Amino acid sequence: MKALFVKDLKPGNQVTGFFVLRRKDIKEYDGQTFLKLELGDKTGRIDGVVWDNPEQIADEAQSGEIVKIKGWVTTYKENPQLKVEKLRRAKDEEIDLADFLPASERSLDSLFEDFKRAVSSVQDPHLRRLLELLSEDSPLTEKLKKTPGGKLWHHAYVGGLLAHTLKVVQICEEAASMYELVNRDLLIAGALLHDMGKIHAYSAKGFLDYTDEGRLVGHIVSGDELVDRKIQMIEDFPPNLALQLKHLILSHQGELEFASPVVPKTIEAIILHYADEMDAKADAFAHIIKTQKSKGKKWSDWVSLINRHIYLGEDEVTEE
Amino acid sequence: MKALFVKDLKPGNQVTGFFVLRRKDIKEYDGQTFLKLELGDKTGRIDGVVWDNPEQIADEAQSGEIVKIKGWVTTYKENPQLKVEKLRRAKDEEIDLADFLPASERSLDSLFEDFKRAVSSVQDPHLRRLLELLSEDSPLTEKLKKTPGGKLWHHAYVGGLLAHTLKVVQICEEAASMYELVNRDLLIAGALLHDMGKIHAYSAKGFLDYTDEGRLVGHIVSGDELVDRKIQMIEDFPPNLALQLKHLILSHQGELEFASPVVPKTIEAIILHYADEMDAKADAFAHIIKTQKSKGKKWSDWVSLINRHIYLGEDEVTEE
Amino acid sequence: MKALFVKDLKPGNQVTGFFVLRRKDIKEYDGQTFLKLELGDKTGRIDGVVWDNPEQIADEAQSGEIVKIKGWVTTYKENPQLKVEKLRRAKDEEIDLADFLPASERSLDSLFEDFKRAVSSVQDPHLRRLLELLSEDSPLTEKLKKTPGGKLWHHAYVGGLLAHTLKVVQICEEAASMYELVNRDLLIAGALLHDMGKIHAYSAKGFLDYTDEGRLVGHIVSGDELVDRKIQMIEDFPPNLALQLKHLILSHQGELEFASPVVPKTIEAIILHYADEMDAKADAFAHIIKTQKSKGKKWSDWVSLINRHIYLGEDEVTEE
Amino acid sequence: MKALFVKDLKPGNQVTGFFVLRRKDIKEYDGQTFLKLELGDKTGRIDGVVWDNPEQIADEAQSGEIVKIKGWVTTYKENPQLKVEKLRRAKDEEIDLADFLPASERSLDSLFEDFKRAVSSVQDPHLRRLLELLSEDSPLTEKLKKTPGGKLWHHAYVGGLLAHTLKVVQICEEAASMYELVNRDLLIAGALLHDMGKIHAYSAKGFLDYTDEGRLVGHIVSGDELVDRKIQMIEDFPPNLALQLKHLILSHQGELEFASPVVPKTIEAIILHYADEMDAKADAFAHIIKTQKSKGKKWSDWVSLINRHIYLGEDEVTEE
Amino acid sequence: MKALFVKDLKPGNQVTGFFVLRRKDIKEYDGQTFLKLELGDKTGRIDGVVWDNPEQIADEAQSGEIVKIKGWVTTYKENPQLKVEKLRRAKDEEIDLADFLPASERSLDSLFEDFKRAVSSVQDPHLRRLLELLSEDSPLTEKLKKTPGGKLWHHAYVGGLLAHTLKVVQICEEAASMYELVNRDLLIAGALLHDMGKIHAYSAKGFLDYTDEGRLVGHIVSGDELVDRKIQMIEDFPPNLALQLKHLILSHQGELEFASPVVPKTIEAIILHYADEMDAKADAFAHIIKTQKSKGKKWSDWVSLINRHIYLGEDEVTEE
Amino acid sequence: MKALFVKDLKPGNQVTGFFVLRRKDIKEYDGQTFLKLELGDKTGRIDGVVWDNPEQIADEAQSGEIVKIKGWVTTYKENPQLKVEKLRRAKDEEIDLADFLPASERSLDSLFEDFKRAVSSVQDPHLRRLLELLSEDSPLTEKLKKTPGGKLWHHAYVGGLLAHTLKVVQICEEAASMYELVNRDLLIAGALLHDMGKIHAYSAKGFLDYTDEGRLVGHIVSGDELVDRKIQMIEDFPPNLALQLKHLILSHQGELEFASPVVPKTIEAIILHYADEMDAKADAFAHIIKTQKSKGKKWSDWVSLINRHIYLGEDEVTEE
Repeated sequence: MKALFVKDLKPGNQVTGFFVLRRKDIKEYDGQTFLKLELGDKTGRIDGVVWDNPEQIADEAQSGEIVKIKGWVTTYKENPQLKVEKLRRAKDEEIDLADFLPASERSLDSLFEDFKRAVSSVQDPHLRRLLELLSEDSPLTEKLKKTPGGKLWHHAYVGGLLAHTLKVVQICEEAASMYELVNRDLLIAGALLHDMGKIHAYSAKGFLDYTDEGRLVGHIVSGDELVDRKIQMIEDFPPNLALQLKHLILSHQGELEFASPVVPKTIEAIILHYADEMDAKADAFAHIIKTQKSKGKKWSDWVSLINRHIYLGEDEVTEE
Repeated sequence: MKALFVKDLKPGNQVTGFFVLRRKDIKEYDGQTFLKLELGDKTGRIDGVVWDNPEQIADEAQSGEIVKIKGWVTTYKENPQLKVEKLRRAKDEEIDLADFLPASERSLDSLFEDFKRAVSSVQDPHLRRLLELLSEDSPLTEKLKKTPGGKLWHHAYVGGLLAHTLKVVQICEEAASMYELVNRDLLIAGALLHDMGKIHAYSAKGFLDYTDEGRLVGHIVSGDELVDRKIQMIEDFPPNLALQLKHLILSHQGELEFASPVVPKTIEAIILHYADEMDAKADAFAHIIKTQKSKGKKWSDWVSLINRHIYLGEDEVTEE
Repeated sequence: MKALFVKDLKPGNQVTGFFVLRRKDIKEYDGQTFLKLELGDKTGRIDGVVWDNPEQIADEAQSGEIVKIKGWVTTYKENPQLKVEKLRRAKDEEIDLADFLPASERSLDSLFEDFKRAVSSVQDPHLRRLLELLSEDSPLTEKLKKTPGGKLWHHAYVGGLLAHTLKVVQICEEAASMYELVNRDLLIAGALLHDMGKIHAYSAKGFLDYTDEGRLVGHIVSGDELVDRKIQMIEDFPPNLALQLKHLILSHQGELEFASPVVPKTIEAIILHYADEMDAKADAFAHIIKTQKSKGKKWSDWVSLINRHIYLGEDEVTEE
Repeated sequence: MKALFVKDLKPGNQVTGFFVLRRKDIKEYDGQTFLKLELGDKTGRIDGVVWDNPEQIADEAQSGEIVKIKGWVTTYKENPQLKVEKLRRAKDEEIDLADFLPASERSLDSLFEDFKRAVSSVQDPHLRRLLELLSEDSPLTEKLKKTPGGKLWHHAYVGGLLAHTLKVVQICEEAASMYELVNRDLLIAGALLHDMGKIHAYSAKGFLDYTDEGRLVGHIVSGDELVDRKIQMIEDFPPNLALQLKHLILSHQGELEFASPVVPKTIEAIILHYADEMDAKADAFAHIIKTQKSKGKKWSDWVSLINRHIYLGEDEVTEE
Repeated sequence: MKALFVKDLKPGNQVTGFFVLRRKDIKEYDGQTFLKLELGDKTGRIDGVVWDNPEQIADEAQSGEIVKIKGWVTTYKENPQLKVEKLRRAKDEEIDLADFLPASERSLDSLFEDFKRAVSSVQDPHLRRLLELLSEDSPLTEKLKKTPGGKLWHHAYVGGLLAHTLKVVQICEEAASMYELVNRDLLIAGALLHDMGKIHAYSAKGFLDYTDEGRLVGHIVSGDELVDRKIQMIEDFPPNLALQLKHLILSHQGELEFASPVVPKTIEAIILHYADEMDAKADAFAHIIKTQKSKGKKWSDWVSLINRHIYLGEDEVTEE
Repeated sequence: MKALFVKDLKPGNQVTGFFVLRRKDIKEYDGQTFLKLELGDKTGRIDGVVWDNPEQIADEAQSGEIVKIKGWVTTYKENPQLKVEKLRRAKDEEIDLADFLPASERSLDSLFEDFKRAVSSVQDPHLRRLLELLSEDSPLTEKLKKTPGGKLWHHAYVGGLLAHTLKVVQICEEAASMYELVNRDLLIAGALLHDMGKIHAYSAKGFLDYTDEGRLVGHIVSGDELVDRKIQMIEDFPPNLALQLKHLILSHQGELEFASPVVPKTIEAIILHYADEMDAKADAFAHIIKTQKSKGKKWSDWVSLINRHIYLGEDEVTEE
């Protein structure tokens, strides 16, 4: 556990501690070169500045890595700023990722247990084999546990991808019981795999960000490739079943303009799309309500992503 | 039960029977006035023509009404056509609406029992009172049972509104159990009432059509007015609860361009919207699959409303 | 009349006076809780801060209310800031609303006289009765006089709703004389009522803002409900006339994406829509030209709501 | 006056008369070349066919021209068809354009008188000079009188451009009296000129159609060019006034997606836009109501251009 | 070479020959089951009907296959119709695909030579290796040669994919010479591979159609998978180069709403997108001009895909 | 050459030099009137302030003009600010425009030589005559050389219009060689003229900005007018050729919503559109890559105009 967090830094403090390096830029002012930093941990962000040996220090670490810093806190334009004297990349054994990233309330292992339980509910032998191949690929599942569900909007925390996936599975399970034409195993497999590409599309090293793959290929196609490669390893995986499963992954965002290269054309695909939307939006609304509700405040700040204020509710009336 | 259905009419047949008058137009051909009709029942449509006394016969009934007809079947442009000699409005005791409109598989009374069961699950006293006022208003509930869920696209049959409503309630019940911030009673009340305006927006006299109110006011605002009038009758209905409930009805189509005058701004509203969409689309897909799937045909005809073909599935392989 | 306005506050001033409390937030800095305020009047806004007993003072008043304040002006981040020592809710007899909100140039009574004159020009007995019911409902008309036409964009001042309504009536009157098929009384009634829901959708207590009803129901449906309730009180109001009148209110924004739940389908509705648009836009353009035109400046600042600069015109050349 | 109109043609008739040649196509059937025609006049359209010397006859006239035809009426696929034996281009003195095109109810001269009256109401000397140059250019004004306001949707008849222009002037006149910042003469000049390019964009020789200029340049820019050329002839036309006038023409359709290359940026431009829209839509609605209203029919056929049915109104109740 | 083509079928003909089975449907008429067919070859389409043993004959072949037919030509609703007595699937050695599908003007081998020449111009060793793996995979290249560039709109013929690809390469080659920052080999590789997924997305067995993969996965992702699988086979293919190459394939349609799951983010991607668009549109325009231009016809029929008429040009004036 | 550039100004410096006056505003603070300035040159921008005689000094020059200033540099809100004592409009002989605006890398004369070379490649006599009229109009060509290709996004420098035009010509030349139906001379003439209206739409006096004509008429129609006026001077310019050439100018932005009043309807127009897009986007991407690429930075800042980050590429690996 870190000794010192961003939210506790006060002007005048001497600082020796670990922070994630979110961004670094070589700049010039009044003829002198310096290094501008953005540092952070799970409690917030702070700007930093390096005036001595800026270029050498800039080479010590890449943005996204966790660094050990020595310096002190000053004030610049009435905001706190960290004057950095020394900086080096942290060693893995020195740090606990949980200090830097928001985390799931449930343990990652417990979430993954539920994931495996859903896998074992699938009876279709080919889908079952595919899901097992994935859940036994431990480098993959280690990443899976740590991947967030989104960068900013919903499930934006370590473990968020698993938490979101399990809720989508739950809604799909209910729907499978309601509509007779639905292939339940196909739908559940699609729900389990729909966002799997986020493993490659997000990095959650020191803070949540997109990877190059996330930006150049996108999580939808990354997930399709991941599934395609595993299917290649399974003898006799029915080609038509493979197409239908890929269709669930590719179409789950529902519309071309939301980056799905195909629109939902099967009954399982249309159900998965709405289950995904319902959980993503309900989580996002709940997150905004929890973090913004305060006494006398009934409406959230403007949420530009969805162009509206969200209703936070009346104050609870407590009897005395 | 009707003796004779549209699908059974063959050229040469003498016809005496009941049909719904879908459309009538006075036309002129070669200097002579005639009356063009579109007739139908639950099995299909047939064109009709009246050459004698067309204007007098045109006054016998309005489109949407059920008429008794005497005539015979000929062929015009290689399609069957009914030459009509006599036509009068049918009496209520002569006909059974079920012969003219597609009907629910479950009985209307059984659907309504489920509706009342959902009503009685609501604990909040004001919402409960409101729902009871509605479900005890028998002219209203008589109409409610017979109203379709849609004109063409989903649940387009007598009883469809109830069938759709109950599915939406079921999905919302599941969601209420998943998200802690949700006001369950408010959500269930909203689910029960969200499409109530369709009672006034659709007519299901002889065939499914929009009413003037459906076109000039729309089912969303009709539902809001209906609820507003009942709320006026309840002493001390909390104004804020009324606003939230109306918001559920008004925002349930999710986006302004889909005719909701406000977008969903509460967590219950966003859940109701996706529950409504999921059931509407799943029912529409299922209906297309059931009616279009045939041997060797894997894709539906083009569905222009959603700009795609729908996947009907592989043929079942039956072991021999 | 207030003794002291925001625009006159200078660093160093001692301040005792009345301001509207636009916003309040309990915050924390360096371990200490404080209360951040946004205060204002018709001349501008100023930030405020309370360091002593912040929570107790926060309970003194709600945002939107007018408060009496004792404090002094300092500078924070090079902007003036009011350090507040005492704060209490103002009493109605202490204040004049006109000090806090921008006001109509014409008197509210004179505007309302014109409104009543338009009402009395309507000959249709049912529409006339309805309009009279509204204009005799004095709690309603008191609000009507004070409601703005919009929050930011057009007629954003006390009395603006009446001013806008009268201009729309004038354009409709001209149109009614031009197109023979138009039902003049229906069109004028629609023009008088089209924005009536803004009475419930805006609050103009201390500054212009949306109410909960404005956000959860919207001014269009609020107006429909208001008219629906009055119509219920009139015996024998023709149902078809009611539908057409409601249609005018519901469709007046012209397109679904502008929050009208139905598009204009009658000739009166299409005329009302363009009359409303013409006056709203002409007022908004005129307001921008009046407030931004200065010597040598021919173009307004960027108007993000309509994505353009507005032409302010050449400088007047004055002869010498 | 023509002796024989399309609406009167009956199978078996011998025909010698004048028709507009709307379309011609050389086709082949069963190894034989023939010429397929579409003929028409103001009462309707009829297909024609030429079996003898089709290629030679095809060279006799271009589509859009009026032709004299000898032939007889037969039936093809249950529709009447004109078997054509002889065909030649009509001479100007043989025909009256009014037989082929729908015409204004008011005389063209009377409409043009009103146009000139509006011109003479303009006091600004440069705008007045420009408008006079145009209204004294008799080849131009001869065309102006005959140009329709639109091809299908509104004012689609000979004289329609003038009729539409005068209504737009009337609405602008009212608006100029309502908004103090408006330059009345500029606005009226813009109203008079806004659709002037339709003179070159539509051809109204035998039926209403677009010209090559209408399709390659468009009526908006054609109008701008026409005005630009006249302004070049006026010494000392103020450049800034020219820009503002052109802006009125170029922006009058209001949005880029409706083919205006600039959006309205002056108060005159925004008013002209809505005046134009109001008259175009009111005329289109009125035209649909007049042509489609019949007993018992309350709703128009589907109007695909605006995606709605239009309300035709209740039947008049006549007292007995 | 086929003996008998659709365009030559005349009522009364006895027919024994080969046609592609485009569609088949079991129908019922007047109590009797029959089989409705759509047959075709490269010269056109004709309807067919089977009255004897329709279900047995329906099992003889799938739509998309080529069949041998015995029957005679009749007339139904004034169109020719083939009454089919016998039908069986054709053997591969009996038919020449070129009789059924429109074909490239250049030979497929010559097109493929050019393709290989472009491959051998790539110097980067990894890209070169990848391209060679593909161009040496003969089942793949056999399909590649026969795949069309599109179904209806551009390059809709056997060999069209190669023809389109080579033109895109040519434009990209020019662009690579113009912009210094462009990685020429990467761009050319992207141009060669951008539409490769059409091999799996279109079937060109007897007529051009989408495959299940084309509808469920789409040609963009099919192409990505195809390239991904080949890259897996190459040791040390640089991961970053793989991402950039996939990005070219995935983004080449330019916008999400045109089914690209990512938008172009590299300079090569933005160039490839416009090169692809330019060739697709130029080919489509040229095809329309060539097939529709005739004497006196200056404008194409309405092209609904792009909402416009296309200019066909003035008639050539030939000197005498 | 200027002695002193914005980027070199340091707090404490005495300044006497030339700057472009980008903006001026009379403001009031604490009861005192002052003049706020924005000054600049090709190296950057700096705020200025005038406390003595602000109104008199404000009249010395208009925004867009170059001024001589005497003052000194201070700091305001931690940014440098120029306190201005004296200010007067610069004389033409005192300044070199190249100090104030970003410039082309190639000399303007060399670019114009290439332009004339392209003109002389056109064989069609009428197009050749038109192009010569333009390139011999020296007031016009002087402006042409100095006009930028865009304000912010692409080719935003003196000479940029010529540089962009030549690249578009080059792509069109390649396309003309590829598609047989293309009228090469028409396409090249269109490419040379497509953005000619920017001469009147942009001002490049002291910094790049839109003119009133640019905002009220737009560069597309300005170009059309410019060409129309020259065509009026050429005897016997074929009307149809004029329409096609204007069509190239008017449609080159490709879609109505990008301000083209007509969409491309000829094969030359569709090619010109994509050639224009390709060069504009490739230049914009290249500019972003060149100005933003730095060590370790692989992605550009957010580019709001196209809603994406642009890939800057991996760091070059240099061998040691």
